[in-house]
Amino acid sequence: MSSSTPTTTTDSSKAARPTTLNFITGNANKLAEVRAILFTETNVVEGGDNSSNKPQLVLQSRDVPGHEIQGSIEEVARDKCSRAAAVVGGPVLTEDTALEFAAYNGLPGPYIKYFLQAVGHEGLNNMLAAYEDKTAFAVCTFAYCGGPGQDPILFQGRTQGRIVPARGPSNFGWDPVFEYEGKTYAEMDKAEKVRLGPQKIIRPSA
Amino acid sequence: MSSSTPTTTTDSSKAARPTTLNFITGNANKLAEVRAILFTETNVVEGGDNSSNKPQLVLQSRDVPGHEIQGSIEEVARDKCSRAAAVVGGPVLTEDTALEFAAYNGLPGPYIKYFLQAVGHEGLNNMLAAYEDKTAFAVCTFAYCGGPGQDPILFQGRTQGRIVPARGPSNFGWDPVFEYEGKTYAEMDKAEKVRLGPQKIIRPSA
Repeated sequence: MSSSTPTTTTDSSKAARPTTLNFITGNANKLAEVRAILFTETNVVEGGDNSSNKPQLVLQSRDVPGHEIQGSIEEVARDKCSRAAAVVGGPVLTEDTALEFAAYNGLPGPYIKYFLQAVGHEGLNNMLAAYEDKTAFAVCTFAYCGGPGQDPILFQGRTQGRIVPARGPSNFGWDPVFEYEGKTYAEMDKAEKVRLGPQKIIRPSA
Repeated sequence: MSSSTPTTTTDSSKAARPTTLNFITGNANKLAEVRAILFTETNVVEGGDNSSNKPQLVLQSRDVPGHEIQGSIEEVARDKCSRAAAVVGGPVLTEDTALEFAAYNGLPGPYIKYFLQAVGHEGLNNMLAAYEDKTAFAVCTFAYCGGPGQDPILFQGRTQGRIVPARGPSNFGWDPVFEYEGKTYAEMDKAEKVRLGPQKIIRPSA
């Protein structure tokens, strides 16, 4: 599908050389989540940890100006990742979480942030007032681009849950209204959310 | 606000020379509406009409590839217009109609086309099931850009109406669910819609 390959590998000959990966976000919560995923769920250790012979990665947060495009979740992710690689001039990782309502055939999807901002947790519930079906999908899309001009590779995780009146701390987006197996994301600790949430990437996306 | 000036003027010395304006759309209905507005509501006549001494304009439809950005109605319009002028290499006019729900603090706004496509007329009504207030604003934004690198000038019209169950022919977007003074847009003929609708530009937008 793509000629680019992630620069972090498990090749032991490269283990001593930390790779710098630019994580594109202006959001500290996102950076913490991605760090939690990368360094607990993979074989990679954080740059500077010389106690092991594992591949090291320096995760560097970068904000890239410019607007996201309108389109499908995948189109938005590819465009953002390609633009970021061009601006940074090196390998970049982007992450976007969308929220799809089954009753809306996938919307608000990539536009969920605007709806959350405009109508809040109660408003998200109100959107589904006319529907019995409160099913929602949390969709987490990571895109990796090796550098300017390279094709992004997408990895996507989807978690099926449902929209409920807000429960739990309200400091992270729509977490309080998305319920998965009896708990809202806001009621889970970070480790549990990473274990159960869509960030648990299950398959490369086409 | 801007150094650019529309190239069509009422200066009689230029009356004999038709100006070509690229109207950016892939939508035949939009072209017909804009033609109806331009050549009935202004002093300008369609290029090739030598019977009068009025300024002549050749309105040429062009489709410009690329995605619209996410953002406010105004940001989306400016970006689209600037990109189009860069691609076409000359003066361009863009037109976008958004639909704002008061209960959603302005959304779906520029994303209305995705919601219409995903949930249809009934779904747009369902979005407001939880709200007494069915108020909506049809927002029509024309952007003109004189050429590559020039600042777009925006003209915006807003019509306050309300969302109702669909009435009238359903061949043009959300027209059947937007009611203004007792009639949906779909129940009006083109002339009436132009006279009453948001395309009747009332003020330049900041």
